[in-house]
Order: sequence, then C-alpha cells, then structure tokens
Amino acid sequence: MKIRVYYEDTDSGGVVYHSNYLNFMERARTEWLRDLGIGQHALKTNDNLMFVVSTITIDYKKPAILDDELTVQTDLLSMRSCSIDLKQQIFRKKELLTKSIVTVACIDANQLKPVKIPTTIRKLMELL
Amino acid sequence: MKIRVYYEDTDSGGVVYHSNYLNFMERARTEWLRDLGIGQHALKTNDNLMFVVSTITIDYKKPAILDDELTVQTDLLSMRSCSIDLKQQIFRKKELLTKSIVTVACIDANQLKPVKIPTTIRKLMELL
Amino acid sequence: MKIRVYYEDTDSGGVVYHSNYLNFMERARTEWLRDLGIGQHALKTNDNLMFVVSTITIDYKKPAILDDELTVQTDLLSMRSCSIDLKQQIFRKKELLTKSIVTVACIDANQLKPVKIPTTIRKLMELL
Amino acid sequence: MKIRVYYEDTDSGGVVYHSNYLNFMERARTEWLRDLGIGQHALKTNDNLMFVVSTITIDYKKPAILDDELTVQTDLLSMRSCSIDLKQQIFRKKELLTKSIVTVACIDANQLKPVKIPTTIRKLMELL
Repeated sequence: MKIRVYYEDTDSGGVVYHSNYLNFMERARTEWLRDLGIGQHALKTNDNLMFVVSTITIDYKKPAILDDELTVQTDLLSMRSCSIDLKQQIFRKKELLTKSIVTVACIDANQLKPVKIPTTIRKLMELL
Repeated sequence: MKIRVYYEDTDSGGVVYHSNYLNFMERARTEWLRDLGIGQHALKTNDNLMFVVSTITIDYKKPAILDDELTVQTDLLSMRSCSIDLKQQIFRKKELLTKSIVTVACIDANQLKPVKIPTTIRKLMELL
Repeated sequence: MKIRVYYEDTDSGGVVYHSNYLNFMERARTEWLRDLGIGQHALKTNDNLMFVVSTITIDYKKPAILDDELTVQTDLLSMRSCSIDLKQQIFRKKELLTKSIVTVACIDANQLKPVKIPTTIRKLMELL
Repeated sequence: MKIRVYYEDTDSGGVVYHSNYLNFMERARTEWLRDLGIGQHALKTNDNLMFVVSTITIDYKKPAILDDELTVQTDLLSMRSCSIDLKQQIFRKKELLTKSIVTVACIDANQLKPVKIPTTIRKLMELL
C-alpha cells in the first residue's frame, strides 16, 4: 500500500499531522481487507457489519513531509472471536516512521455492539 | 460563531488549508440552524431530511494562521422551494479573509433527492 | 488521477463530505504539476514559491460514497502572469459528480504575495 | 474544553471517525498550554520550539455521534527533561468515550530533534 503525502496531510509544523497517520493505516486496512475479497461498503450494506478500531498504540519515530511516498505494511498478529490485532508500520523507503498495534473489532452496524467475526472472513484471514 | 485555528487546520505552507474554510463555514451553518431551533441529527432521524451543499463559490483573500481566532458571519440571501442561498464571510477581527456564496439544498436523507423545505423551517428562516 | 474513497472521506450523511472533493482536486493538481516535472516541496524549498488556491466555484451534482473509485480530470483553461484557471471534474466511471473552476495563484512562500509564474513553468504549461 | 461534533468529524459508519478524537485531544492540549500562558504559534516563532506527539495509546470505549457535545479532560501524569505524559479522556456528559495516554515531546522546530523543556514552561506545568 503506497501513499503519497499531499498538502492536506501536513500541518504548519512542516510535517504530516499526527492523526493523519491513522488515516493512512485505515486506508491500508481497507486495502488489506479488499485483497481478501472483503469490501467494507458491501459488508455494511449486505451483512450489517463494520470493522472498527478498538485500541491503537502508535509510536511516532520520524516525521513524513510533503511529497513523500510512504508504504504501509500490515501484519496480522492474532485473532479472537470478535476482534483481531494488527501490526502496522509506515515506511519511507527503508526508513521506519511510525509503528503501531491496532485492535480492530467486528461490530453490528446498527447496534454498534461487538459480534463474532463471520467464519468465512476468519478463514480468509487465517490463510495469511 | 467563533473558530480557533488549531494545528489540524493548517498545512505545511504555514496557513489554514484551503478546504478547511469550508468546514468552518459548515460549522457556522450548523450553529445558524441550531439558533433557529433546528438540530441536524434530529432533522435526519425524525424528518429524514438533510441540508447539503449544492454549489459554493469561495474567494480566498487573505490566509489565516495557527492560533488565529476567526469569526464566521452567515447571512441569508434568498430562498427557493428546495434550496437557499447564503453569504458566508470569515473574518479575523475586522479583516475579511474569505467571502463565499453557498447554495444549500434540502434533500431526502435516503434517496438523496431534493425536497421542499418544510414550511415550519421556511417560516423560521423568513423571520431572520 | 484515480482516487479511492475511504471512511475518512465520508460523513454520517453516508456520502463524501463536501470539502473533501477540494482535497481530491488538490491531489490531482499536485499530480498534474508533478507530470510537468514540478514538485511542490522542491518548488517551495528551492524557489520559495507556492501555488495556492485563489478562488473556487464548485457545483455538486451527485454524491460519491465509500469504496467508490473516482477520477479527477484537470484541464488548463487560461493563464495570466501570476495565476492560472483550471477546470476540474470528478467522475465515477462516466458519471460526472462535481464540476469546478479553480484559480490558482503563484505566491512568494514567505510574504504570501502574488508573484509572476516563472517562465520555465509557464512554458511547460503552454505545451499542454 | 468543550467540543461540538460536526458533520466533518463523522464518517459513513454514523459515528465520529476514529482519528478525529486525536484532533479533539490536540485542541485540548493547545488550550491547556494556552491556559498556562503558552501560545504554540508564538512558541515556534519566538523560541523555535514545538510540542509534538511522540506516542499515543487510545482506547475507544463508546462512539460519539453528530451534534454531541464532548468534554476533553487533560491531566499531567509525569514530566521528563524533554517530554511529558498526559492522560486525556473524552466524555459525553458523565459517560467516558475514549481514554488515552499521550507522550508529548519538546523539539527544535527546525531540526525536529528533542530538546529540553524550558525551565519557565516546566515551572508553569509543575504548578498544576
């Protein structure tokens, strides 16, 4: 997952605004799900399910700046019945900029309550 | 409507990122509606209606920077059956930073199609 | 210029938040300049110049939603000594979603005042 | 620190987009510094210093929605020579929505390297 840094992503400190790295990671999770054949709009519309962030720990090591081309690497760490843990790292070429552990929960889109990850999705994730 | 400029609003050019003035104006329209007794969440939930932007013309005269305190002035220019025209100006003290004409349409929240502005809301707006 | 719609781009109306189309257009302008060999970070650092939006008129015709893949088409309409006019249209496949006229000014990055577009850049743009 | 939820803060899941809570916390830190007499724009311009986020751990407990009025509570946990730890909690009335530990580092605004927090600022923080 390649991400280009645009003006919208930066702040007047001259670097990428800190919360925007979370957006980059969410884009990468979306593409990671899409690569598994899971579209989030379809998941919500057809199955009434959403994957939402439950906890994030992020360590900012070095800043990205305008025009940088970044790579987000997403690795599945563990699975539970209603949630998964991912490690997400953002690189500029070989240089590690941020490192993050993200817990993503599967919830009912109406009630916003945790539900079990469907077996079909679980099996797709286990193949990774 | 007072708005403080935070880091999130700026870009690496050192000024407020150009699309964020549209966010400021949307906040001001929300408060303008709230002052009329109209909450947008209730409007959507109870009446299945949303006010959405149909066209915007914005003229950027001077940039705002971090820590500025801005004022958004919202004036109703005209009303049609399904939409209204507003003039919105953003000031830093007496200094005009942006000037905008915004057409806001009333739409059905499910079908996203234009519908007539309810008479009760129309009457509230006419009192301005 | 292809743009994928992520959760960050949407709002609780279920569609892309109106100011985010301006971000999409800015990404497209950045890539349009990059295709001409002009990097905006280098332009600011080396030449002390920035291209900034002076006026925008945007007409919202149809909304984009989560997971849409959008195309931004950017056409140069006219050039003046310190600014250019662009037409930018956002499509979902063949369907026109937004249509915009954007005036972009060349400014001094320190004083934030209009300056002449350098001849080398002007010539590159004239080739289009 | 009171924060109103606007359309710009929400996503098509119907709730506040997860990274925007980080923006809310940053606004609260800015006002927390301002209450100590520290303006971040002045700090950068006059002292060439910036406070930047070094690590964040955030636990999302319940979602906020459009039109909610939120409160951000900021508490200083500990101070080191170049950084501080803050606890930041976001509430809707009495209800805890997110809980976060944020490490903020003091850096040189040009070199983006950690520097000691000035004694005057340290003393102001110790008074809390």
